[in-house]
Amino acid sequence: MSEHGAVVEVRRGGLVESRHRVSAALVDAQGRLVAHVGDPELVTFLRSAAKPLQALPLVADGVTDAFDFSDEELAVCCASHSAEPDHVETVLGLLGRIGCREEDLECGPHLPFHQASAEALLREGRRPTRVHNNCSGKHTGMLAWARHSGVETAGYRAADHPVQLRIRREISQWTGTPGERLQIAVDGCGVVTYAQPLSGMAGAFARLIAAAEDDPASPAGRVTRAMTGRPYYVGGTGRLSTRIMEATRGRILAKYGAEAVMCLADRERRWGAAVKVEDGAKRAVGAAVIEFLAQAAILNQAEVQALDDDHVPAVTNTRGEIVGELRATIQLKGGK
Amino acid sequence: MSEHGAVVEVRRGGLVESRHRVSAALVDAQGRLVAHVGDPELVTFLRSAAKPLQALPLVADGVTDAFDFSDEELAVCCASHSAEPDHVETVLGLLGRIGCREEDLECGPHLPFHQASAEALLREGRRPTRVHNNCSGKHTGMLAWARHSGVETAGYRAADHPVQLRIRREISQWTGTPGERLQIAVDGCGVVTYAQPLSGMAGAFARLIAAAEDDPASPAGRVTRAMTGRPYYVGGTGRLSTRIMEATRGRILAKYGAEAVMCLADRERRWGAAVKVEDGAKRAVGAAVIEFLAQAAILNQAEVQALDDDHVPAVTNTRGEIVGELRATIQLKGGK
Repeated sequence: MSEHGAVVEVRRGGLVESRHRVSAALVDAQGRLVAHVGDPELVTFLRSAAKPLQALPLVADGVTDAFDFSDEELAVCCASHSAEPDHVETVLGLLGRIGCREEDLECGPHLPFHQASAEALLREGRRPTRVHNNCSGKHTGMLAWARHSGVETAGYRAADHPVQLRIRREISQWTGTPGERLQIAVDGCGVVTYAQPLSGMAGAFARLIAAAEDDPASPAGRVTRAMTGRPYYVGGTGRLSTRIMEATRGRILAKYGAEAVMCLADRERRWGAAVKVEDGAKRAVGAAVIEFLAQAAILNQAEVQALDDDHVPAVTNTRGEIVGELRATIQLKGGK
Repeated sequence: MSEHGAVVEVRRGGLVESRHRVSAALVDAQGRLVAHVGDPELVTFLRSAAKPLQALPLVADGVTDAFDFSDEELAVCCASHSAEPDHVETVLGLLGRIGCREEDLECGPHLPFHQASAEALLREGRRPTRVHNNCSGKHTGMLAWARHSGVETAGYRAADHPVQLRIRREISQWTGTPGERLQIAVDGCGVVTYAQPLSGMAGAFARLIAAAEDDPASPAGRVTRAMTGRPYYVGGTGRLSTRIMEATRGRILAKYGAEAVMCLADRERRWGAAVKVEDGAKRAVGAAVIEFLAQAAILNQAEVQALDDDHVPAVTNTRGEIVGELRATIQLKGGK
């Protein structure tokens, strides 16, 4: 373990050039802290790691049945997708079926995370639009809930809109934090985001996975099945959440959130995990998450090997040469 | 001051979502530590902050005179430029005058830092080439030195090429670290990069600025004049190094390096400063550097105000709404 505690080291040649500090919590379905690194009570926002929870009302309130969502469509509602052609088509198809248009999405535009898709778009002389926002599936789900519930769709992103009030109840239920005590802020896509200690996030994911295993037809079961069964629709080519779910053949549910937070759940052990790189650096999340799960024996050796590119990412230069690497020097500690 | 020590806090709504730790050193021309935050002996790579030192042999060995470099051209040799049209033209013009072509540059291509220039390039169906690399001016300077010295230009980026051996002597002289003890690695552009404690970087910049003030016609004086007189050519539109030199009308020499290191020098006090965001996050450098210099009274209130966008950067979402801010919570400490 590094003298600097739980960190991901960024090495260039023989020297550590930069350091990312890491905190993480592993919690069982009864809410007990099983293991941690750094500060498991660190409070931060769930950001897009909340998407599986934000999608639960779609199943619970009959929206997915009413509009006949496919697993791909439910998965893209839980996604931070890369705006590859399949993602964009899936979102546009669902938007059309619920009687909405792209203009009804209240997220802002940004270039596709998928570099080739971003460059192709610019080459065609186009600008990114709202459907390219990585959260456009989540927004489409919110529109679908509003349509199904017969409430006004406009303004669905506001904290006091019925769809957000409904989601807040769901977040409150799974985290155990009373709704009025949930700290909120505005997410990158304009909707409400929720703060939790890492232990609270991990506990919510442990309870979610336990509910899914107990009843595969439940909202938790159907959301989990969609995400772990269609991991490409939750992220995209090369994305960390997608790769972890693929490498574990869906045994691990994984969802990344902006500012380097990641929530996961293990279907076998019924444990939940939450990992945060304290400075918000996306580049360090793979090293931190995979090393944490490996030390907790949640990932086996073959899976860690399959995820090697994310576990020990190379630092390359503009010539394409490997000039360094990222490596987590963390040491799992037990529950407190 | 935050309970977490010297940090830049990233706030979203009412909560700190992420934290960047900061170390910095302020050193006088005699090498004495005047002030610091965090660990002033933190060792990291100079990266592009070394460019003013790497350019000194161009003046000292008669290269700039032989090829009649303009101030803009010498500035672009010290630049991490944004590949805006003026930068690209300046580099290509200099390349032609020294009898080289773009293919002689040994840096890899990357998209222009300047977003509009990057998008324009893609829209035209083009790919970035070597001249767009932010270091292409530095590489052109190295080629010019090789041409003038009558040595082979090919392979100029290697640590044992005469141009790199010459630069290593220069780095050694200004930092006071014997050449054989200088830790090196490969930079993002493929050439050698040098490690130093922050106090060593700051000391080198203090000695550089003192030499420049003592003799404006010296290599230090001419490099300093080119950079502080033509700050746009050292970075580009909206870039931090450029903005600091502009806001101080050239009183402060400033050079950013990758992985969030910045070296600066104050021409009046003859002090040098080096600041490192320990996790390498570019977004936190402005907040850290400007707050550090403000507390050291190196920037006055009007200058801090003029740099407000970099001092307290807004966090915006994809809708263009301001949803948070970055703010340095550091407390200057004296020399040790």
